[in-house]
Amino acid sequence: MAEEISRLEAMRHSCAHVMAQAVGEMFPGTRFGIGPNIEDGFYYDFDLPRPLKPENLPEIEKRMAAIVSRNLPIVREEIDKERAKAMFAQQPYKLELIDELAEQSLSIYRQEGFVDLCRGPHVKSTGEVGPFKLLSIAGAYWRGNEKRPMLQRLYATAFLRREDLEAHLARLEEAEKRDHRRLGRELDLFSIHEDIGPGLVLWHPKGAALRRTIEDFWKDEHARRGYELVYTPHIARVDMWKVSGHWDLYREYLYSPMDIEGQAYILKPMNCPFHITIYKSRRHSYRELPVRLAELGTVYRYERTGVLHGLARVRGFTQDDAHIFCRPDQLEAEVADVLELAAFMLTSFGFKEYEMRLSTRPEKYAGTSEMWEESTATLRRALEKLSLPYGIDPGEGVFYGPKIDIKLKDALGRAWQGPTIQVDFNNPQRFDVNYDGEDGKAHPVVMVHRTVLGSMERFMACLIEHYRGAFPVWLAPVQAVLIPIADRHLGYAQEVEKALRQAGLRVRLDSRPERMQHKIREAQLEKVPYMLVMGDKEAETHTVALRLRDGQDKGAIGVSQFEALARQAIEERQ
Amino acid sequence: MAEEISRLEAMRHSCAHVMAQAVGEMFPGTRFGIGPNIEDGFYYDFDLPRPLKPENLPEIEKRMAAIVSRNLPIVREEIDKERAKAMFAQQPYKLELIDELAEQSLSIYRQEGFVDLCRGPHVKSTGEVGPFKLLSIAGAYWRGNEKRPMLQRLYATAFLRREDLEAHLARLEEAEKRDHRRLGRELDLFSIHEDIGPGLVLWHPKGAALRRTIEDFWKDEHARRGYELVYTPHIARVDMWKVSGHWDLYREYLYSPMDIEGQAYILKPMNCPFHITIYKSRRHSYRELPVRLAELGTVYRYERTGVLHGLARVRGFTQDDAHIFCRPDQLEAEVADVLELAAFMLTSFGFKEYEMRLSTRPEKYAGTSEMWEESTATLRRALEKLSLPYGIDPGEGVFYGPKIDIKLKDALGRAWQGPTIQVDFNNPQRFDVNYDGEDGKAHPVVMVHRTVLGSMERFMACLIEHYRGAFPVWLAPVQAVLIPIADRHLGYAQEVEKALRQAGLRVRLDSRPERMQHKIREAQLEKVPYMLVMGDKEAETHTVALRLRDGQDKGAIGVSQFEALARQAIEERQ
Repeated sequence: MAEEISRLEAMRHSCAHVMAQAVGEMFPGTRFGIGPNIEDGFYYDFDLPRPLKPENLPEIEKRMAAIVSRNLPIVREEIDKERAKAMFAQQPYKLELIDELAEQSLSIYRQEGFVDLCRGPHVKSTGEVGPFKLLSIAGAYWRGNEKRPMLQRLYATAFLRREDLEAHLARLEEAEKRDHRRLGRELDLFSIHEDIGPGLVLWHPKGAALRRTIEDFWKDEHARRGYELVYTPHIARVDMWKVSGHWDLYREYLYSPMDIEGQAYILKPMNCPFHITIYKSRRHSYRELPVRLAELGTVYRYERTGVLHGLARVRGFTQDDAHIFCRPDQLEAEVADVLELAAFMLTSFGFKEYEMRLSTRPEKYAGTSEMWEESTATLRRALEKLSLPYGIDPGEGVFYGPKIDIKLKDALGRAWQGPTIQVDFNNPQRFDVNYDGEDGKAHPVVMVHRTVLGSMERFMACLIEHYRGAFPVWLAPVQAVLIPIADRHLGYAQEVEKALRQAGLRVRLDSRPERMQHKIREAQLEKVPYMLVMGDKEAETHTVALRLRDGQDKGAIGVSQFEALARQAIEERQ
Repeated sequence: MAEEISRLEAMRHSCAHVMAQAVGEMFPGTRFGIGPNIEDGFYYDFDLPRPLKPENLPEIEKRMAAIVSRNLPIVREEIDKERAKAMFAQQPYKLELIDELAEQSLSIYRQEGFVDLCRGPHVKSTGEVGPFKLLSIAGAYWRGNEKRPMLQRLYATAFLRREDLEAHLARLEEAEKRDHRRLGRELDLFSIHEDIGPGLVLWHPKGAALRRTIEDFWKDEHARRGYELVYTPHIARVDMWKVSGHWDLYREYLYSPMDIEGQAYILKPMNCPFHITIYKSRRHSYRELPVRLAELGTVYRYERTGVLHGLARVRGFTQDDAHIFCRPDQLEAEVADVLELAAFMLTSFGFKEYEMRLSTRPEKYAGTSEMWEESTATLRRALEKLSLPYGIDPGEGVFYGPKIDIKLKDALGRAWQGPTIQVDFNNPQRFDVNYDGEDGKAHPVVMVHRTVLGSMERFMACLIEHYRGAFPVWLAPVQAVLIPIADRHLGYAQEVEKALRQAGLRVRLDSRPERMQHKIREAQLEKVPYMLVMGDKEAETHTVALRLRDGQDKGAIGVSQFEALARQAIEERQ
């Protein structure tokens, strides 16, 4: 298997050279950037005399196919820096790379007239390059630096077997159909507007209905488990963030200060100092701990426009946040409870698979190494107590303590950053957060920062893609569309609408003067779970003709029977 | 009645002179500011050689009583400006007032050696001054200008009859006990911190529980009435507020801009432009209107530190906002529905009395006078359709349209600014907000801005004072405290706790090793509606001994009986 992977990697790398050769032949004067492998494929950056167009891709592919079929030998040579510089005299990007190399000797790979600076390995000849596909064109700054020239990046992939390529392309197509930005538009869930600001999400009624369902479920479940809800403001004096350390450590993510009566305020990047302030507003005895303060707290962090991505990477987002203030002897049980809650939440939303990672002490850290060892061991014990398999990310902990990250896998098997559980020694010290011990003295609490979804925005991005917008009944923004066949059935439909609304269902009556088939088709496109068609027979017998969004016709069913069926689906979170 | 009021006003004014005379006698060199009547009393501003202390008040009162008992005649004189200036040569504040007078002649009132510049009227002699009481001392800038000297303001009141004074003082004492800032602290509902920022509220678990109950009720009721929930960000590019007109008209209330990648952003002072953007994100046919977008939207407005007051006047507050986009022919029905909803909300929260005010066209206005006349008539018709008595505030409309304000009256009969319903011609034009008419052409919508509570913060301030913190069962942060008599009853208490929690009640088990009487007293101070005491007998018979917060002992009651009783109280919003 490992051998096959390295053969795949070498082959893809050769395919990148084939692609570069083809582009060079088609566009004399091309200046070559770099062409590394990436997950599931590779790219190559070119500085071209004119921009590539999508219609160029088939032509490049054709030329690549010809190079492959000529089965050109791919030859490695070791040369010294001076010869390399002469060889790449017309290639300024390559020259820059050569200049930066520490070694005096380097390797090049050659096939026919095409030569590239390259460590390898490669396959032996172009004939060994497997089935490939060019995917897309994008702009990319040379070396990711906005001050350097913008090159054209050509994304492509190649596989050892045709069926693997085809499966991969099908997966890409499926991912494209599930893209939450596209579904967000098609299902009218949310929008983002340049004139309001990139990375700032407006939740439309349907997205908001989904969000409210998630939030209510979250709040109720937290209340049940002994969390207490709080609300805190979106700004605070900058001094709070100096005490917390954010001002020094996360300055690049903070918005510029606002002035209020000579005091500097900033948008909150985190909820912690507010929860700490609430905790500290009165004394706490050791008997009252743990205190668990929870908030759906909207925070604002600066991200470059270039990295923003739909709901998955934004500038304003709502953390499903909580801070647990506990005694050291309570930490293990608290962490286990959070893990259990996170698993319950993810499972409830239909995510069956997830991955746990334990991150240990980084190079720069607060607290003593004993504190780190002890709390890392505590996290480990909590994971093991619940028999949860986990991996270790050495040195990836936050500076203030070790953490557990949970990645959830969606229906396509893609991993999404989800819940996080972080132990914190730093803030209790910085903010002087204590409890009165049995000995009558003040002791520092241990703080746990945690989310069990991640953020509402990213979680909902994941949810949309996981379900491809066809949400289970309990989450669907509209659970049933009511479709009267003719105008004379409108009265009965309104009666049914009222009854279902009364029963707490989210229903919509489609009273437009359109044909039934058209209404059904639209409801299917809207991915509404239930369609209730009503004609003469249904009105007479107080029934509805039930159709599911996958096209299944379930026939006539009593209104109260449907109500019971829908309510059961909701209760079972189907 | 009108005569009695003017006699009361004249007497209070004379009492202010008596107070000024007393202060002048006690503090030679006193410079006098002004001493007007205000609601329920009067004040006088003094520039004194040394600050007044609370212990000075009885002394001043004693001296005033002496002046009253000497029954000094109060004499009016008309004098010219020159003589007045000579007479008040040692009184710089009076000189300033004299200089600003347009008339050449003015009136003074004299009693014994005390003379004051005054329009009157006054009673005939100090003996006619009724029972009075000095209330408090506060600092006040001369003419409300922070750059002028700070004077000392002495608040006082006087009545024609002793029993009226006593009733008023009792009402003041009651108001003091109901002060939401005090109850907020005592009941641990919320806090405001200098180091986070004045006017920024942190909702503690109990206040947040109350707030969540209100929010859920609000959201459900709005959904039932055809509103659609949305969520929008807390910042937007400043350009949005330039289009809306806020940047020009409300600049003083806006926070200073933040810079993001060279673009200026500000905290939102209003939700309107976001809701407009959502409405505009797709086309709307005349058949789809009205569209009603609702949001519990947290906005930020600058207010001077000096005017901030607990929850009632803050810098960050959550409007229970909605914007209705409708056709002109729908306006009347929409306004009537909003009035009906507002009345329903206020009644649900226990406010039986409220006052409606219709505000008409101000001097500066947008739109044509026909638009104003028509929409003002529409508001009027809506009020009359519902047979709601209302007053008129001429010229008090917003520049963009007429409005109806609702003031609610609390248990002490004090009026609080509550819901508002505003018609808007301006934004639909500025933002180009249209619908496709039956004629296939685009027509501007009519927008209605409305709240049905006002803001969460001010409404909750009012709610706390109205109920004196003893919230009805459905709103109480903790609905029942469970009190096991001895340690051996803890198991049974936990069983009851679980059952009641399962039933959706907010309960707290007081498992501390304290005496039962102490726990009951504490629960009463916390104003928890139900106390459930559990001893041997209760554990055996599966009952609880029910006590109410007013001390009533209801005796033993079955657990499921109690559950039914509590649930009924909640359903009936008791």
